[in-house]
Order: sequence, then C-alpha cells, then structure tokens
Amino acid sequence: MPKIAMLGSGFIGRFYADSILGQRSRDSIVSVYSRRKESAEKFAKDYHCKHWTTEMEEAIAHPEVDLVCISLPNNLHEIAVLLCCKHKKAVMTTKPLGRNATEARRMLEAVEDAGILNAYLEDLVYTPKFLKAHASVQNGALGRILWAKSRETHPGPHSEWFWDLEQAGGGCILDLGCHCVEIARSFIGKDIRPVEVMCWADTQVKPIEAEDHAIGLVKYENGAIGQFEVSWTFRGGMDLRDEVMGTEGTIWINNFLRTGLEMFTTGKGADYVAEKAESNTGWLFPMGDEVNDLGYNHMFTDVFNAFEKGKAPKETFYDGYVVNAILDAAYRSARTKLWEPVQL
Amino acid sequence: MPKIAMLGSGFIGRFYADSILGQRSRDSIVSVYSRRKESAEKFAKDYHCKHWTTEMEEAIAHPEVDLVCISLPNNLHEIAVLLCCKHKKAVMTTKPLGRNATEARRMLEAVEDAGILNAYLEDLVYTPKFLKAHASVQNGALGRILWAKSRETHPGPHSEWFWDLEQAGGGCILDLGCHCVEIARSFIGKDIRPVEVMCWADTQVKPIEAEDHAIGLVKYENGAIGQFEVSWTFRGGMDLRDEVMGTEGTIWINNFLRTGLEMFTTGKGADYVAEKAESNTGWLFPMGDEVNDLGYNHMFTDVFNAFEKGKAPKETFYDGYVVNAILDAAYRSARTKLWEPVQL
Amino acid sequence: MPKIAMLGSGFIGRFYADSILGQRSRDSIVSVYSRRKESAEKFAKDYHCKHWTTEMEEAIAHPEVDLVCISLPNNLHEIAVLLCCKHKKAVMTTKPLGRNATEARRMLEAVEDAGILNAYLEDLVYTPKFLKAHASVQNGALGRILWAKSRETHPGPHSEWFWDLEQAGGGCILDLGCHCVEIARSFIGKDIRPVEVMCWADTQVKPIEAEDHAIGLVKYENGAIGQFEVSWTFRGGMDLRDEVMGTEGTIWINNFLRTGLEMFTTGKGADYVAEKAESNTGWLFPMGDEVNDLGYNHMFTDVFNAFEKGKAPKETFYDGYVVNAILDAAYRSARTKLWEPVQL
Amino acid sequence: MPKIAMLGSGFIGRFYADSILGQRSRDSIVSVYSRRKESAEKFAKDYHCKHWTTEMEEAIAHPEVDLVCISLPNNLHEIAVLLCCKHKKAVMTTKPLGRNATEARRMLEAVEDAGILNAYLEDLVYTPKFLKAHASVQNGALGRILWAKSRETHPGPHSEWFWDLEQAGGGCILDLGCHCVEIARSFIGKDIRPVEVMCWADTQVKPIEAEDHAIGLVKYENGAIGQFEVSWTFRGGMDLRDEVMGTEGTIWINNFLRTGLEMFTTGKGADYVAEKAESNTGWLFPMGDEVNDLGYNHMFTDVFNAFEKGKAPKETFYDGYVVNAILDAAYRSARTKLWEPVQL
Ligand SMILES: NC(=O)c1ccc[n+]([C@@H]2O[C@H](COP(=O)([O-])OP(=O)(O)OC[C@H]3O[C@@H](n4cnc5c(N)ncnc54)[C@H](O)[C@@H]3O)[C@@H](O)[C@H]2O)c1
Ligand SMILES: NC(=O)c1ccc[n+]([C@@H]2O[C@H](COP(=O)([O-])OP(=O)(O)OC[C@H]3O[C@@H](n4cnc5c(N)ncnc54)[C@H](O)[C@@H]3O)[C@@H](O)[C@H]2O)c1
Ligand SMILES: NC(=O)c1ccc[n+]([C@@H]2O[C@H](COP(=O)([O-])OP(=O)(O)OC[C@H]3O[C@@H](n4cnc5c(N)ncnc54)[C@H](O)[C@@H]3O)[C@@H](O)[C@H]2O)c1
Ligand SMILES: NC(=O)c1ccc[n+]([C@@H]2O[C@H](COP(=O)([O-])OP(=O)(O)OC[C@H]3O[C@@H](n4cnc5c(N)ncnc54)[C@H](O)[C@@H]3O)[C@@H](O)[C@H]2O)c1
Repeated sequence: MPKIAMLGSGFIGRFYADSILGQRSRDSIVSVYSRRKESAEKFAKDYHCKHWTTEMEEAIAHPEVDLVCISLPNNLHEIAVLLCCKHKKAVMTTKPLGRNATEARRMLEAVEDAGILNAYLEDLVYTPKFLKAHASVQNGALGRILWAKSRETHPGPHSEWFWDLEQAGGGCILDLGCHCVEIARSFIGKDIRPVEVMCWADTQVKPIEAEDHAIGLVKYENGAIGQFEVSWTFRGGMDLRDEVMGTEGTIWINNFLRTGLEMFTTGKGADYVAEKAESNTGWLFPMGDEVNDLGYNHMFTDVFNAFEKGKAPKETFYDGYVVNAILDAAYRSARTKLWEPVQL
Repeated sequence: MPKIAMLGSGFIGRFYADSILGQRSRDSIVSVYSRRKESAEKFAKDYHCKHWTTEMEEAIAHPEVDLVCISLPNNLHEIAVLLCCKHKKAVMTTKPLGRNATEARRMLEAVEDAGILNAYLEDLVYTPKFLKAHASVQNGALGRILWAKSRETHPGPHSEWFWDLEQAGGGCILDLGCHCVEIARSFIGKDIRPVEVMCWADTQVKPIEAEDHAIGLVKYENGAIGQFEVSWTFRGGMDLRDEVMGTEGTIWINNFLRTGLEMFTTGKGADYVAEKAESNTGWLFPMGDEVNDLGYNHMFTDVFNAFEKGKAPKETFYDGYVVNAILDAAYRSARTKLWEPVQL
Repeated sequence: MPKIAMLGSGFIGRFYADSILGQRSRDSIVSVYSRRKESAEKFAKDYHCKHWTTEMEEAIAHPEVDLVCISLPNNLHEIAVLLCCKHKKAVMTTKPLGRNATEARRMLEAVEDAGILNAYLEDLVYTPKFLKAHASVQNGALGRILWAKSRETHPGPHSEWFWDLEQAGGGCILDLGCHCVEIARSFIGKDIRPVEVMCWADTQVKPIEAEDHAIGLVKYENGAIGQFEVSWTFRGGMDLRDEVMGTEGTIWINNFLRTGLEMFTTGKGADYVAEKAESNTGWLFPMGDEVNDLGYNHMFTDVFNAFEKGKAPKETFYDGYVVNAILDAAYRSARTKLWEPVQL
Repeated sequence: MPKIAMLGSGFIGRFYADSILGQRSRDSIVSVYSRRKESAEKFAKDYHCKHWTTEMEEAIAHPEVDLVCISLPNNLHEIAVLLCCKHKKAVMTTKPLGRNATEARRMLEAVEDAGILNAYLEDLVYTPKFLKAHASVQNGALGRILWAKSRETHPGPHSEWFWDLEQAGGGCILDLGCHCVEIARSFIGKDIRPVEVMCWADTQVKPIEAEDHAIGLVKYENGAIGQFEVSWTFRGGMDLRDEVMGTEGTIWINNFLRTGLEMFTTGKGADYVAEKAESNTGWLFPMGDEVNDLGYNHMFTDVFNAFEKGKAPKETFYDGYVVNAILDAAYRSARTKLWEPVQL
C-alpha cells in the first residue's frame, strides 16, 4: 500500500488524484507539493493529504512518503527525479519523461543507479480499449502487424507553460506525440527496434515558436510502420483515435469523440457545459468515465501492484527514454527533411 | 470496509467478485456459499475467500460476515433475504428483486422490520454513460423528459434455470425488462408515479412456456412514457441501448455493440474468441472494460460507501419492488391486452 | 416517357421535381398547378414547365399531360384523384393516400374503375438502404422475420396546414406513421395480413389538438410485429431509423443523422447553414444526396418504368389504403386503449 | 445527348455502364470494344449497344459515336486517347490518366491540340458526400484549410494486370493514391500549387515487385498538407475515408464501411453473399447504392452536361496530369527517401 507524495497540483495532478483515491482504493496521498501555498492547501484539503508544502524536497523527503508522483511541467521532471534518487523514494513521472533523450537518459541512469522503482505514466497504453485490443494482437487475431497509427489532436493546451519552449521542450510533437509513439510501439512490439523517423511539422495557426501540427512515420526493424498525427489546431474537441493493420485483421479505436454516448441539447434547458468540448449546445459527445476510459485506473493499479510486489511496472523510464529518442529523431527530421536514425 | 458473503458462484457471482476485488479495492469476500462443494471451493480459491460452505445459512451466519450478496436464481432471493433478516446481516440482492411484486413486497417489509441495509443491485443505472447522461438530465439539458426507452436483447440466457418458469418467475420481461424499467424510471424521475402499463409479449422462437420477446409502455403520472424492448431471440450479440427525449434535447446511449472499439479478423491469425459475440471472425465489437462499463464498479462503490456511512444506497429494495410491480402489470397486460394499472 | 402535371408547388412538390428532372432524366413536367399565380409561375420557371395554372383541373386536363403528381395537402388528395379519373390520366399521389381508410378506399375504387395507373409515392421503401436491406431479407439472410421497427421523429412540420386537423386529417401518426407502417409491412411481407393495432398517442408539447407523439404496435397474422415511433417533438434534427429482427440476423438502418458525413464548425468561418438541422454550429450531420438517399430517384424510376410498360408500380393505391386502414386502427386504439382490429 | 463508345468491358466498364444507363437516363452506349468476342457481345447485350467490336479503333471511329469512354488497363490509356484525337472524338478516361506524368502530359497535349473535350473520370470528387463537404469548405465553414487526408485501402485488386508493373505502371500508390491525391487537392484548392512530396512505400505482404502499402505527404505552396494512405494489404473490406482540418472546423467522411446500414447474419438463413466484403456472415456493412454513393452518377452528369454545352467538365486531363506529377514525386521520394519536388 504505497503512501504517495504528489508534486504539482495542476490539471494532471488532480486527474491522477481522482484516480488514485477513486472507487474503493486502499491508496492515499500523504503529502503534496505546490509552488503556491493556496494551491497546496486546497489540494491537500480536496484529497485528504495530511501534509502539504511549497518546498519540493520536503514532500519527497517526508518520512511517510514511499512513492513520489511527478505532475510538474516538463522542465522540472529531471530535477524532481534526481531528488527522488537522493532520498531513495520510488518514483513515477508523467509524460514525456524528459524534454529530450539526453535528459531522459540521465533520469534513467539515475533511477537505475539508485535502484528505485521507476514508472513512466503513459496512461494511453492502459486504456481498457487499448488493453483489449492489445490482447487480441498478442493472441494473433491480426496476424503480423504492418502498421499502427495513433492520432491525438485538440485545440491547444490549457496552461501558459506549454507555449514556452524552455519549459515545455517542444510543441505538439513532444506533448502529444509521446502518447502516439508509445501506443504504436506497443502494438508493433516493444522488443522491436525503432530504426528511423520521417516527420513533417509546422506552426500553422498559433503565434508560437514550437510546432502546432505534425505528422510522423517511425520505421521499425521488422518493416512495420508506426504513424503519429498530432496537432494543437484541431477544432471539435479532443480527437483520440488509433488504428492497427495486420495481415489477418484490423482494429479501429475511438477513445473520445464517438464512444456510444451522444447528446443533443438546445441549451435552453440549462447552462449545461460539456467537458472539454468546444461547444455546449447542439450535438455533444461526452465520455462516460474519463478517469477509467483514459487508462488512469488500470495504470495506477499496475504501478501500485508492482510497487507492492517489488517488480517493475509495465512502463518504466526505459520506455519513456525510447519515446524521447524517437521524438528527438522526429524533431531532427522536421528540420533536415530527411529520415533520421533513432539513436538509442 | 464490509466483509462480504457471496451466495451463489455462477455467472453474476463471479462478475460481482471481479468488480468487488478489482482495481485497488479494500473490500473482501470472506465466505462463499455454493450448492456443490467443488464450485464453492473453486470460487473461494479464485477470490481468496477464507471460508466456503454448501449450507446457505452458514455463509450468512458466519461471524466475520457483515454484508451478504445474493447471486442466486430468482426463486431463491426471498429465502436468502429472510435468512439475512434473521441474522441481521446487511443484504444486497441481484435483479430482479422478486419473481413478482408480492414476493418483493414481503422482502421489502422483512428488511425494513429487521432494520438492515438493503441494496438492489441494478447495475445499469450505475454505468458511467448512464451516470453522465442522468446528470445532464438532472441539470436540465434536455428540458422536460417526454420519453425514455431502454432496449436489452440477446440470443438467450446461459443457464438452464432461466428456462424454468418456477425458478425464473418469467421470461425476458422479468429477466431483462427489470433493467429497462429502472433505467427509464430513473430518467423520468424516481419520484414520479408509474400509473399503467401496456405490453405485448410472445414466444416467437424458443421452445419454452415463457415469453421470448416483449415490448411495453409504462405511463407515468406526469404523462411521460417509459418504453422497454426485450428479447431472447436477438441475433448479433447483446444489444443494450437507451434513448431519452426531452423538450430541449435528446440522448442516445449505446452500451455494448458500438462503443468505439471495432475489430476485423479473418480468424486465421489465431483461435481468437470474442466475448459474448455470436461469431469470432469478421467484424467484432468487443468492450473495453465490461466490469466498469456495465456499472458494477460504481454500483459497489455506492453500496459500500452507504454501508460504511450507515446510509441507504441509491437503489434499495423499494426500487426493486416498484420494478416488480410495473412488470406484474406488464404481464397482466400481455394476457388481458388492456392497459393495466401499476399496483403499488 | 411520361409528361407530368405537378399539383402543388410546396415542399414536396419541389423535392419531387428535383428528383424527376435530376441527373440525366428524360422526363419532364409540362404543367404545374398552384393556388397562387406567383408560386405557379416561379415553379414553372425553375423546372422548365411550359404551362402553369391556378386551376387544378386545367393542369390535369392539359392535353400534353399523361401522368399527374399530387403534392397537395392531405384533404385535397381525393379531389385531385377524382379529377384524374374523370380525365383518365395516370396518377401518383404523395403520402398519406387519404386522411383515413374510407377516403382511401373511395380513391382506390375510383382509379380501379377508371382503369388508370395509380402509384402511391411512399419514397421510404425506395431508399437505397431499404432496397439493399429488403433484398437481404428476401434472400433469407435474416431467416423468419419477427419484428420490424421504423422510427421517424423531428421537431415538427414546416407548413401551417399540418396543424389543422381538418386539412391534415391527423397529427404525427398520419403524417409520419404512414411511412413507418409501410416500411415495417414491407419487411414483414406485403402478403401477410395486419390483424390488430395497439397505439399510445399524446399531445405532449405542441399547442395543438392532434397528437405530437405516438408509439404503435401492429400485429400480423403470422405473429410478426411492426412497430412505429413517431413524433413532432424530437430535438436534434430528423431521426429516421429502421430495425429488423429475424431468427437468423438483424438489420440496423440509419437514414439521416449518422450516415458517414460529420462536420464540426465554430461558425466563425462563414454563415454556414446546415439543412434541416436545428443548429448550424458545433457537430453537424449533413446528408450527401437527400433526393437519392430518401428514395425519390428509385421511386420515380419504378413508377415511370411501370407507366411505360403499362404495368403496376411497386406501390399502388392499394398499399396506401392498407396503410390508412392500419393507421385508423391506431387512432381508435389510442382512444379506446384497446388492441383494435385492422378493417380491410 | 452523347452517344458513347465504351473501350473495355471489365470491372469499371460495367460500373460506368450501370451509371450511364441507370435511373431514367437519356444517354446510351452505341458501341463497345473488347478484346474477346464473347465479352464484347455479352456487354453489348447487357447494355443494349447496337455495335460491338474486337478492334479498338473501329469502336472509336464508329460514325454514331461522339464520346469515347476509356476503361482499359493503365498502359492502354495513351494509345486509346491518341486514337480519339485522330478521329476527333471527345474522350473521357478512367483513373489514373497515365502511368506517369510524361505519358499524362503527352495525352494532355494531344487532346489540347485536337481540341476535343477531355474528361478525367475521378469519381471520388463527385461523391454526394464529397460534394456536400466541399461546398461547406468553399462556404468557409472550416476556415482556412490546414490538412486534408484521404485513405483508400482494400485487400488487393481483382485482375491480373494490376500486378504487372508494365501494364499497371505502379502499385497501390498509382492505383489508389491517384484518388486520394485529387480529393485532398480539391479540398485544399485546385488553384494552389503542390510543391513537394514525402512518401514511404513498401511491399509488405504480396509477392509482387510493386508497393502494396504507402503513406505520403504533399506540401502545397500555402503550407497546407495533403496526406494519402493507400494499401492492398488491408483486411476488412474497402476502407474509404477522408478528413479535413481547417482553422474553424473539421470534416470526417466515411464512404464505405460505416454509412448507416449494418447487418448481422448467421448465414444459416440463406447463401447470402455481401458485395466486396471479405466475409458473408457476422456483422456486414453493405452500401445502399454504390453507383451513386461512389460518385459515378454525378460525375457523368457533369461530363455529359459539359459535352452538350461545349464546356469543360470539372475534372479534365490537366487534373489527371497534376495527379500523375504528384505521384511521380511520391515514387521518387519512396526511393530517395527525400522530399521530392513536384515537377509540373
Ligand atoms: N498523461 C497525460 O495524459 C497528461 C495530461 C496532461 C498533462 N500531462 C503532463 O503533466 C505535466 C503537468 O501538466 P499539467 O497539464 O498538469 O499542467 P498544469 O499547468 O495544469 O499544472 C502544472 C503544475 O506544476 C506547477 N508548476 C508550474 N511551474 C512550476 C515551477 N516553475 N515550479 C514549480 N511548480 C510549477 C503548477 O503550479 C501546477 O501545479 C506535464 O509534464 C504534462 O506533459 C500529462
Ligand atoms: N445484474 C445483472 O446484470 C445480472 C446478470 C446475470 C444474472 N443476474 C441475476 O443473477 C442471478 C443468478 O444468475 P446467474 O446468471 O448468475 O445464474 P447462474 O446459473 O450462472 O448461477 C446461479 C448460481 O446459483 C446456484 N444455484 C442454482 N440453483 C440453485 C439451487 N436450487 N439452490 C442453490 N443454489 C443454486 C448455481 O449453482 C450458481 O452458483 C439471477 O437472479 C439473475 O437474474 C443479474
Ligand atoms: N413523401 C414525403 O416524404 C413527404 C414529405 C413532405 C410532405 N409530403 C406530403 O406532401 C403533401 C404536401 O405537403 P408539403 O410538405 O409539400 O406542404 P407545403 O405546405 O409545403 O405545400 C403544399 C402545397 O399545396 C398548396 N396548397 C395548400 N393549401 C391549398 C389549398 N387549399 N388549395 C390548393 N392548394 C393548396 C400550397 O400552395 C403548396 O403548393 C402532403 O400530403 C404531405 O403529407 C410527403
Ligand atoms: N474509377 C475507379 O474507381 C476505378 C475502379 C477500378 C478500375 N479503374 C480503372 O479502370 C481501368 C480498368 O480497370 P478494371 O478494374 O476495369 O480492370 P478489368 O481487368 O476488370 O477490366 C479491364 C478491361 O480491359 C480489357 N483488357 C485487358 N488487357 C487488355 C489488352 N491488352 N488489350 C485490350 N484490352 C485489354 C479487359 O478485357 C477488360 O475488358 C484501369 O485503368 C483502372 O485503374 C477505375
């Protein structure tokens, strides 16, 4: 039964907490770190944390804490991980692992040297639909996998720091592509080496330095192709779809906008506001249970079970590092316009 | 933290156990009753129950047990409930509550006299999609509700006892209609009185006495209509769809066959067998996470939280009794061909 | 090559003309009748009619005309048909044939006495999807048909006369139910006798005398059930869906709101207005080719080919009469609350 | 009213004939050329052609013929076009125009020199859904177009010649990519110059020299991206989907596998065989009206109206040439692994 410290009290921090404390969970968050006193206090109150602090190291070092959850902007992941290593606390970090593979590799080496449990919180390979689809692929229902595509597009992130290259480390390739790359890699096989990447990227709409739209192809050593389509310019909500082609079958997954719940409302009945939708009248497509359907529940179950059994979870820092290496190749390719090798 | 006795180790008993012990749950099943030694032992092993027995009362009376879960054929619900009353153990029973309203009323009176927590396990008003849709209806997004339809059809039940009128108490009206009636009633408003019922029923295909196909209309005192469509003759899997119409909007829910996960397989890749589907090649529509998507998780969370707080869960024996009364009227109507009053 | 007179220049008159003159048709409308000079002239100009008139009989009697198309309000169908009989002109009339079976029967007898081609323009049994589905049913792909449901609901008609019982002859049962009844009857078999009808109807929303919402069951002599769901209170556009269940399969048809064309628009790009949709921003579901997809093209092809070959079209006044007889029973049932016999 | 000669009596020849003679058309095929006497005779009989021949030039030169339709393998398009030029007969040719841009350019120059009507039969920019979507794009409902994707994949062609590089000129890039490229180009704007292409292609499954799977990106001078996904290795039927993203909206089109007609059949009812599907039991997704829904009707209407009015149709040899030029760049890119310029 892990006792958790949460670093960061923003969007994903609260989502994680909803999942960790959700349903009939045994697990608890004992400490929370946030920059601002008010945020830390509020989070502690909402999620029944005994302790809160505005000092990151204090949360990590807290004697009751044995597992740290990093939910901070991308540029702070490494700093936080190194503190966990120093205090020998098990660590799980949100995506992307690093802003690039160099950072990611340092983090990987640090946790391995420290000998601590390290989990890479890639929730989208834990969604119920992914798990079911992946099991079918493993069972051979699709034959040999030829191509796996993952698409994540929405109208753009919610926090200022995403738009700052220094803090974010990249645009939609890093922010969304990390999901897509790991989904495709999992369908193709995590034991198959990614070889090279071709990527187009552009800043088509937003007044930013980073890319707001990109498409990439990742070639694996067995000839299979992983494809990612990512954008911060999509209109219509959040589009999260995967497709897999094999010699004996195909799989189509729609994770968000068409899942079997459809609502029309004139908006005259009430001030109804649909989650994450761009409109709150007309035809709306809400999700039933975001925390479960986006994979958070199955992800934390896996990580916490691993923690208790002293095993590695399904996704570790190594996976996060591979994803960063693939995305680094994508960034190079977008610049050089060449297929760029994945350097692992 | 309830300590549960499970009565019955069949289809729904195992489904319930998967949910109760699923994810990171605090809850445990301490005793299981099953007629056959082998089944009881197997269930106890699979779900880590300390104790098993082939005597129903022994499981209920077991000193560690404080909450009993009835997962037995319909004709045994009352017997089991009365034993729970005798031993003053909180009780939750699967659907339908009774084989008819007379039985259900006796059960309701018994638990009220005994003063024990009583939960009616109608999972389909706990599905994530239902909960989201219901919240929208409560918020007024659909205006005044005019009509709510629920459809549950499949190719027929899996166990022999369903086909025996004495044990089952009815055909698809009782077996499936109980879900549909409570779904529609919840959308229309559980405080609105159901007034009368018109029902068509027939035995179109199966070699049985009970009905294998029925359609019914339930008129509520405010003029709203609840509709149920139930059948054991449907081909194509399990069809679970709801629709709601209000003056300001509409909701369409597809709970099973079209939820955003679609697979084609030639079947040559592997002996893949899809759950509950009638075929295992061609286009298949598996569910991501049945235990969650069919409402079991949210249902037990509600019941167990209610248990711990000494409150009533969302669905009690009273609701089960109302459902039975509506279905009794449906059965009378199918015979008399008249709109029959709901006798509460 | 029929030369057509169009009676009425309203909504359906123009739809029919679009179909008749559409694509590379050989057919032409030579005369048009409309009450108001301006409407007649405008229609004549738009559809290249040589002749227009504000006298109904003049259009029918016009020497070049050999086939009359009735697109007038329901109360004028009989008058127009009798004039066609008088002038021995082939006649096709829009749905419903009459305001009731008595009227319909008189019209049927009149055209039979006059010995003229008579077509009942039930376009929805000519939609490409219906034709394909019906062929599958005929081929036995669904086994024995047990149940056929048709649903047509929208937010209410566009012209004043629909709201006047004298002119319209009824509410949504007559206006929309006529489609649904003929669709279900066609799937079940036009040679199978409809026996009795149970119908619920109410005026739930609109300030009118006629019903704005109804649900009906039609029992056929072989035990099959036809179901109709009709409403003028639906919000969300036009909902046109059919379902068929047989012993060996099932068919689901969505004719309007989910046909594979989905659009999201913020509305900031342009004053885009979607057809028949209740909103013009957010998620919209336009149809590709309404005139074809609603069956008009295949319907007129059948009627005109029949005309040229001196044969009867697929749908004649006899079918319109049967539909009226079923709907009369539905109206009686809504009043008496009994299953009412279909009187043919 | 064009009098048509059909060259070729294979798959597409018959499809075209079904459309040309379909519904109430004025148009007729007066002559047909096929290599084999039997095929020519059979086609002539089926489609009421007065004349048939096994000499290509004879059909073209036939005095009654004024419009030639080329439905021959790719390597014969140029030969046939040159004969049309020689005899000054208007010509329409199926896709792709040439096996490469060099051939296409010679054909374009020949018809321009001859001054004859030339139509490029790209049916997929004439589908009802495309036309509706395109109109919305033109109206500005999507704002500025950023990306347009078209996907066409199926399990592989039906005739031997497709597998022979000499006759076919290429694999799935040429065969299917020509559709996708013109769809994307039409959404982005046919006046916007395509600049360069990046393409991945591989032979993953079939025992052939040509590619059986490819993905390409086409960059336009305004920064918009056209994407094509083509394959002969897809399992599950024919997958035909388009997507468009603009600054103010998005469009999703499903042309084939999910269009609102869904059927489940055990196959026990009858020897039902679904068109083009890979299976004939289980869940099937037939199309209502292929000839209309794939655009043939609207395409020939446009071409024949243009012919009668002495104007150019919407799609001319110039468009076919641009498509070939883009695909040539794709083939070069697949080899060089570089973004290759489009040479126009
Ligand atoms: N797994 C997913 O699906 C998913 C979804 C969203 C975000 N994320 C990841 O989660 C991380 C946080 O993103 P978010 O959406 O929660 O962002 P957010 O802006 O909502 O929250 C960020 C948190 O970090 C704190 N913070 C910001 N700058 C800081 C600084 N300089 N020093 C200390 N604390 C600081 C903020 O106060 C806040 O508590 C990112 O790495 C992001 O990529 C993952
Ligand atoms: N909530 C739901 O969605 C849902 C789904 C399925 C079943 N159910 C309900 O669950 C109950 C059990 O159905 P099931 O599908 O699990 O059936 P099942 O046949 O799979 O299991 C029934 C269990 O009861 C035992 N049993 C049977 N006859 C018995 C007898 N005479 N004495 C003692 N034990 C006996 C069996 O050994 C078995 O353990 C029924 O009331 C049914 O309506 C509910
Ligand atoms: N097949 C279908 O799907 C379909 C669809 C819509 C309407 N309809 C049927 O078409 C008929 C006309 O409906 P509509 O929607 O076109 O209505 P509408 O109001 O749009 O047009 C009616 C036409 O009849 C004329 N008219 C009205 N009252 C008249 C009068 N007293 N005397 C002479 N002319 C008169 C109007 O001027 C107009 O030209 C109705 O019977 C309706 O049920 C069929
Ligand atoms: N627009 C579309 O969607 C579409 C669809 C399919 C095919 N096509 C195109 O149509 C053309 C024909 O394809 P198809 O599918 O009809 O092929 P097919 O093999 O079915 O028919 C080809 C026809 O050409 C004839 N033929 C073959 N080799 C010949 C030769 N050497 N000399 C003379 N005649 C010969 C055959 O007898 C047959 O009549 C191709 O260019 C193909 O790309 C277009």
